[in-house]
Amino acid sequence: MAYGKFITIEGTEGVGKSTNLAYVHEWLTQRGLEVVVTREPGGTPLAEEIRALLLAKRDEPVDETAELLLVFAARAQHLQQVIKPALARGAWVLCDRFTDATYAYQGGGRGLNVATIAQLEQLVQGDLRPDLTLVLDIDVELGLQRARQRAELDRFESEAVAFFGRVREAYRALAHAAPARYAVVDAGQPLTAVQQDIDRVLSRLLG
Amino acid sequence: MAYGKFITIEGTEGVGKSTNLAYVHEWLTQRGLEVVVTREPGGTPLAEEIRALLLAKRDEPVDETAELLLVFAARAQHLQQVIKPALARGAWVLCDRFTDATYAYQGGGRGLNVATIAQLEQLVQGDLRPDLTLVLDIDVELGLQRARQRAELDRFESEAVAFFGRVREAYRALAHAAPARYAVVDAGQPLTAVQQDIDRVLSRLLG
Repeated sequence: MAYGKFITIEGTEGVGKSTNLAYVHEWLTQRGLEVVVTREPGGTPLAEEIRALLLAKRDEPVDETAELLLVFAARAQHLQQVIKPALARGAWVLCDRFTDATYAYQGGGRGLNVATIAQLEQLVQGDLRPDLTLVLDIDVELGLQRARQRAELDRFESEAVAFFGRVREAYRALAHAAPARYAVVDAGQPLTAVQQDIDRVLSRLLG
Repeated sequence: MAYGKFITIEGTEGVGKSTNLAYVHEWLTQRGLEVVVTREPGGTPLAEEIRALLLAKRDEPVDETAELLLVFAARAQHLQQVIKPALARGAWVLCDRFTDATYAYQGGGRGLNVATIAQLEQLVQGDLRPDLTLVLDIDVELGLQRARQRAELDRFESEAVAFFGRVREAYRALAHAAPARYAVVDAGQPLTAVQQDIDRVLSRLLG
């Protein structure tokens, strides 16, 4: 049995991740593939509990290294319990955010040392990397306008515009450094145009 | 203002940590020192939430790397919010378990790579180490008999005797490697003899 492929979807707030993740899911399923849809941080009961700790607004300032270690703790559990077993049995895994979000939010957004993130990535993932990372890219102000129409903001969504500007730049820099693994899609386009772009990327991946 | 001193108390289950921690606290307080008593994992609201995740019995197997990262996440938060500020204002910090427990339980007990633990220790603590680590040492079977008289066992206390044997050996090896920082006290003695040993160790530290 061949290994499945691992696709991650990334982007700043209000970029249309949920809509386009559902679109990718449908696209793959229609082609007869088994697809496991999951998310980070989270994806297992313990990892979802860690997610809740991360997203809760709290009076206590959260140490940046503590935050980073919580993210990778959830990831280790998620990989072990869900992602690796699914890929090994030939399923495709479609994940809402993964380690690129750590580079973008904790590295770009908060300014944490990228070498530290890389060290933890190696510890938790070994050589496992996504086969494809879709980066949905949008003007930060426009994305935040969209996100704010939805619901109450969590601890990350409450950050300032400048923070999300750094997150966006970090995503673009990651994609620029490894164009074979990333596809940057202009999420400011009308949805049909976004999804035509996604069609092309997925067709290429499927071969 | 001189920095305070950082004392940690370690040992396997049923070794008398709580009783002797209270004794050390009283001993230092009687000498006019400000003492902050705390514990790991825990010591801040977020770190206590992480502790609860770690100790909960759950159907989901907990990935060993996830467990290790949770321990260090709690530690980073604890250091930043409680331990470092206390030491900086000249208070003494008395902590029920610290990184030696990680070497002993995750390293010795679970067999996790010690180099990985050392890497995370460096990331989270930099050069900060306890000034004194009291290792309360007891025959594992005897300690477990004592612990089991108390209450329902948590996820760690439910491990097998062989696990605690490895934990004990790891503590002894740590102490053997750095005798200036550690004091191993025979906790199988009558309590008055244990506390006489602790008196001597604390008198030496106080200078």
